[in-house]
Amino acid sequence: MTDTGRGRKTLVVGGARSGKSRHAQSLAERAGGDMVFIATAQAFDGEMRDRIARHRADRDQRWRTVEAPVDLARAIAAADAPDATIFVDCLTLWASNLLLGEHDVDRHLREVEQTLAGARGRVLLVTNEVGWGIVPDNALARRFRDIAGRINQAIAARADEVILMVAGIATTIKESARD
Amino acid sequence: MTDTGRGRKTLVVGGARSGKSRHAQSLAERAGGDMVFIATAQAFDGEMRDRIARHRADRDQRWRTVEAPVDLARAIAAADAPDATIFVDCLTLWASNLLLGEHDVDRHLREVEQTLAGARGRVLLVTNEVGWGIVPDNALARRFRDIAGRINQAIAARADEVILMVAGIATTIKESARD
Amino acid sequence: MTDTGRGRKTLVVGGARSGKSRHAQSLAERAGGDMVFIATAQAFDGEMRDRIARHRADRDQRWRTVEAPVDLARAIAAADAPDATIFVDCLTLWASNLLLGEHDVDRHLREVEQTLAGARGRVLLVTNEVGWGIVPDNALARRFRDIAGRINQAIAARADEVILMVAGIATTIKESARD
Repeated sequence: MTDTGRGRKTLVVGGARSGKSRHAQSLAERAGGDMVFIATAQAFDGEMRDRIARHRADRDQRWRTVEAPVDLARAIAAADAPDATIFVDCLTLWASNLLLGEHDVDRHLREVEQTLAGARGRVLLVTNEVGWGIVPDNALARRFRDIAGRINQAIAARADEVILMVAGIATTIKESARD
Repeated sequence: MTDTGRGRKTLVVGGARSGKSRHAQSLAERAGGDMVFIATAQAFDGEMRDRIARHRADRDQRWRTVEAPVDLARAIAAADAPDATIFVDCLTLWASNLLLGEHDVDRHLREVEQTLAGARGRVLLVTNEVGWGIVPDNALARRFRDIAGRINQAIAARADEVILMVAGIATTIKESARD
Repeated sequence: MTDTGRGRKTLVVGGARSGKSRHAQSLAERAGGDMVFIATAQAFDGEMRDRIARHRADRDQRWRTVEAPVDLARAIAAADAPDATIFVDCLTLWASNLLLGEHDVDRHLREVEQTLAGARGRVLLVTNEVGWGIVPDNALARRFRDIAGRINQAIAARADEVILMVAGIATTIKESARD
């Protein structure tokens, strides 16, 4: 099974500034094909706008960018094709958008799981670990940790491959053989 | 050496919502025997009460539950038997109880270490990593990180097996052969 | 390739109280030679002074200690020799000193990278993972996470060996063969 395997799902997980997006992007660009970048980020403020613009400048011109702050399942389904390479960045911002927009997390997560199960393209998803600090003071932050952790577990369970990033170093922590 | 090995001590470590308790519980239920769940949680508020009740509902009826917010060594010793499977959830709440109750952490930790060294049953312990965020503003939180980290290191050093959980994926980071 | 290999660079990374410094120190003491401890800590307050004094008491008398809160490249270069064992503790405090002192992070980082590339001695560097919690409220803490993460990635990329510490357990996540 090569890295470019169609239908293969890879989750890249790690802390902030651990090199997650860069690693997932390099795997995606190696896979090639019809490359779709699905951004879950919303540009609420200048800091986030700068970050989005910087990330966009980092990607090469082969990428088509789609914004999907909430309807991630629909965006993945729309981009999916046997020749597609889909790069979702990132599940943690999606979790945050679901929480702050008071969307039904269970339903949205279930739809993404189903879409991934049926996807024919190569899919790479990036997510943050956010639960390794002390318990946050405020209840909203605790709910966010719960939701983000739940999403990470669900997607990791369905991924063929899970890669942990620490200081830019990739370690494969799950690897499923596929036919 | 099988998973059901008597006298074997396993520490399962990870961030919040990383699937630690679920994984330790599934290892414990596979081991079988006389199953004792030692809960260190204290139901201070509604949020914690809900979490405790939810976790209790997740466990099957074979489990006997013992509460040990502070005297963990005594609870383990009381539950221990060649046929026992003891599941301690979790060391981080225990650390918090020791700190907030102004108990002697060193003495309590030493007692738990000695009890584990002599335990004849299968013991599984769950703990949180809490030191991977930025340094907390308040001194109490910093003391808590220090104590929780010290406990984790001490128990990991004495465990036969240490398992790191990330997004529900288990990675064995320590594995000792046993006679 | 043995642990004592001259010119070899090892980065030890982990959360607070994960046993990073102790592990790096034990690797360094095994390497022996002319042992130089480069401390980036600054004793701003009593808590930090206590921590520095405690760490110093932990090291054996063979160590010579040099303080380098900002000019880390220069301190490494000055200590470097074919027989030197250099232990830098830690990059995260250095990142904090660069940020708070409004120094040019890129320039300082580049100088350290160049110094490491040419170093003839055995070099061990310790650093904290700080980006595994929820996004900090204040902008300065977010900038700190960015800088600390960037430094970790840059040094890890140039290290021959990267070791992840969790609960005192060392896991090698990068290992380069060297001539």
